[in-house]
Amino acid sequence: MSVAEILAVGTELLLGQVLDTNSQFLSEELARLGIDCYYHTTVGDNKARVRDCLRTALSRSEIVITSGGLGPTPDDLTMECIAEVMGAKQEMDETILAGIRLFFTERNIVMPENNAKQALRPVGADLLPNPTGTAPGIIWTITPDRLREAGIISVDSLASKNRYIFTFPGVPSELKNMWMTTVSEFLQVHVVGATIFSVELRHFGIGESALAEKFSDLLEGTNPTVAPYAGHGECRLRVTSKSHDLESAMKLAQPIVANIQERSGYFCYGTDSDTLESVVGDLLKNQKLTISTAESCTGGLVSKRLTDIPGSSEYVSLNLVTYANEAKHKMLGVDDEILTKHGAVSPECARAMAEGVRRLSGADIGVGVTGVAGPGGGTEDKPVGLVYLGLSAGDSYVERKLTIPARIGRKEIRHRTANEALNMVRLFLLERAKVQV
Amino acid sequence: MSVAEILAVGTELLLGQVLDTNSQFLSEELARLGIDCYYHTTVGDNKARVRDCLRTALSRSEIVITSGGLGPTPDDLTMECIAEVMGAKQEMDETILAGIRLFFTERNIVMPENNAKQALRPVGADLLPNPTGTAPGIIWTITPDRLREAGIISVDSLASKNRYIFTFPGVPSELKNMWMTTVSEFLQVHVVGATIFSVELRHFGIGESALAEKFSDLLEGTNPTVAPYAGHGECRLRVTSKSHDLESAMKLAQPIVANIQERSGYFCYGTDSDTLESVVGDLLKNQKLTISTAESCTGGLVSKRLTDIPGSSEYVSLNLVTYANEAKHKMLGVDDEILTKHGAVSPECARAMAEGVRRLSGADIGVGVTGVAGPGGGTEDKPVGLVYLGLSAGDSYVERKLTIPARIGRKEIRHRTANEALNMVRLFLLERAKVQV
Repeated sequence: MSVAEILAVGTELLLGQVLDTNSQFLSEELARLGIDCYYHTTVGDNKARVRDCLRTALSRSEIVITSGGLGPTPDDLTMECIAEVMGAKQEMDETILAGIRLFFTERNIVMPENNAKQALRPVGADLLPNPTGTAPGIIWTITPDRLREAGIISVDSLASKNRYIFTFPGVPSELKNMWMTTVSEFLQVHVVGATIFSVELRHFGIGESALAEKFSDLLEGTNPTVAPYAGHGECRLRVTSKSHDLESAMKLAQPIVANIQERSGYFCYGTDSDTLESVVGDLLKNQKLTISTAESCTGGLVSKRLTDIPGSSEYVSLNLVTYANEAKHKMLGVDDEILTKHGAVSPECARAMAEGVRRLSGADIGVGVTGVAGPGGGTEDKPVGLVYLGLSAGDSYVERKLTIPARIGRKEIRHRTANEALNMVRLFLLERAKVQV
Repeated sequence: MSVAEILAVGTELLLGQVLDTNSQFLSEELARLGIDCYYHTTVGDNKARVRDCLRTALSRSEIVITSGGLGPTPDDLTMECIAEVMGAKQEMDETILAGIRLFFTERNIVMPENNAKQALRPVGADLLPNPTGTAPGIIWTITPDRLREAGIISVDSLASKNRYIFTFPGVPSELKNMWMTTVSEFLQVHVVGATIFSVELRHFGIGESALAEKFSDLLEGTNPTVAPYAGHGECRLRVTSKSHDLESAMKLAQPIVANIQERSGYFCYGTDSDTLESVVGDLLKNQKLTISTAESCTGGLVSKRLTDIPGSSEYVSLNLVTYANEAKHKMLGVDDEILTKHGAVSPECARAMAEGVRRLSGADIGVGVTGVAGPGGGTEDKPVGLVYLGLSAGDSYVERKLTIPARIGRKEIRHRTANEALNMVRLFLLERAKVQV
């Protein structure tokens, strides 16, 4: 097992002006490759401190990944500090310089002379290309002898091992791109010695411990490994396999993935970058159905999420936010009797909203969402967090009642309600597909 | 100037499962107090490594702040490691133990015996109360002699200075609460030696460099200091003053705040935790007006943001998402001629949507939003990022055209459009208030 650490460089991080998402991304990716990450360090734009951090990192970790400090200003010190720590000269790379010039010419801007600095790199380091920005990074493989020459003393366990330095700019999109196109593969070839395949199976409606218990047999496996993750109201199982090439790694993972999908059933809603709204969108498109929502407590969040998906105009034409009772009555035809007898937060009202919006829009599916998002407006009978969902389609009607703990607050109550509404649509569409086959 | 550093403890952070927002929060707060933060370190739940990090931190920083590792499980090592590094015994604090027991009894749960561990603290440390969770922290003032006894060698510049250790649990809401109720004041009294007042003036529609230039005269000041920050499509100016008590610190800041507000005019939309939607909500309530939105490209985002605000039912009763042309025509009465001649993405359509939704809802203000959010659907005439906004109220009509760069992507285009729509409403209401006075 190789050991890595991450060094984020930038005073803006230490002032709290910028949140360090890069270290999280890199850590997740390292974990995916089976590389241990023991430290994150953040340091400001200060030469002495950056050098100290680099020396410490190189003494105790095989893989040192930096982000930030590759820009054109005098504040951007990372490359200079790496060269100094390694006792290496910096040289101007004419190819990189030409690339930076091109970046500006293509944008009809004259390259500021400062930017030439970004083409400097320590003698001995290789280029880490940056296809989407001006600052390329380096990949530097350092032998134990070279490290000793630089006066850096290894911890015993790493004394005979190569070190690898990777430098990334601080811009998250550039860093991700560079990781995906170059570094991930480099690490698989040179450090892991195998090709890694990994896929995340996204689950909704089942908790992390229930998921871990359900699949305890698989969590013990070594190739593939299966590991549970939780967050943002959902759980993921990550299946990771390694082999000599991608195809055989995928073949190793495939039966485990199929096993999980089979046993998880409807709890598993998708993989990797899928979201509840993207999956609902795909199901609607496949089944050539349209949807229309009538929201009260979520105030447009369900509509917003449905239309987050590019191409959602194929299945969304009209959604309503009927926040007031009068709007529910006037626009959706919710009976005054329902509103006075049962109240707006009632299964009856959710149903009338779902049916009403469907009638109004002519969509195949109508969804009604009504509840108490808080913090005010709760009563003993109808506390904050009580929500009713309704789905009307053809002759079918499905309803759900949610009792979300009030303490999680208005924002989370609305978020969870939208999750549940989208999931209700997903389950309905899955059932419908089964019946129709 | 005192020097602090932050140590986040938790293997979940090194696996990338959790994003470290605590270090950002703490850094921002330290900056607000004028305390330099030189390092963030993240380390896993490993005793040897946590101890190493603590030793390093205590040798080079006056203030060491930890987050995480205060839970009841054997993985939670922070307190134990601090005691070991300082060569101190841990003792059970019966008052804390009683508090933890009470926390569980109040929730009708029997306290798991593990939780007793959370009442242990190193002899000599003071309690840092945690009003919202089971794990209290410590505040430990360590003299130079005590540090030497523990075998920790200071950097020269700190050799004669006290050290302060603060431990927080990893739960962000508990950490914030403990900071606000105890630690911030402690630092002002014991480290800064003054009371700090700070306020952020939030700006929309003006860039960071323009703002910095406009107020270059104020950025040089020392008490109060004024510093610009940017992010999420807006800019902030933070005014920070220090004095012997809060009242006099506020008095120092007041003329500068007034100066900025006067010179910024409408660019300055609020302070501290204000948002465009909360400010719009306040203006609507003050002017006793209601609002109704008709959205196309934003798909409900404007409605969602308006109703993010508790109590928004006072001014929102009905919002529409008319994604399809047919919905715009049928629901809002947008003329077929407008749709065929000018298209849905046109100033004419934005106006018809704003007026239509106002007619339909009976609201005082109607807002129409139509544009191309992409990634598909753009043409040479109407590229991705082209958006028209309309606002209809009384006999007034206001319109805006946005040309947002397509490259920032669908999500950001929608976000910026919603910002601009909310800001348009804000400006209208400010003008209206001025006329009416």
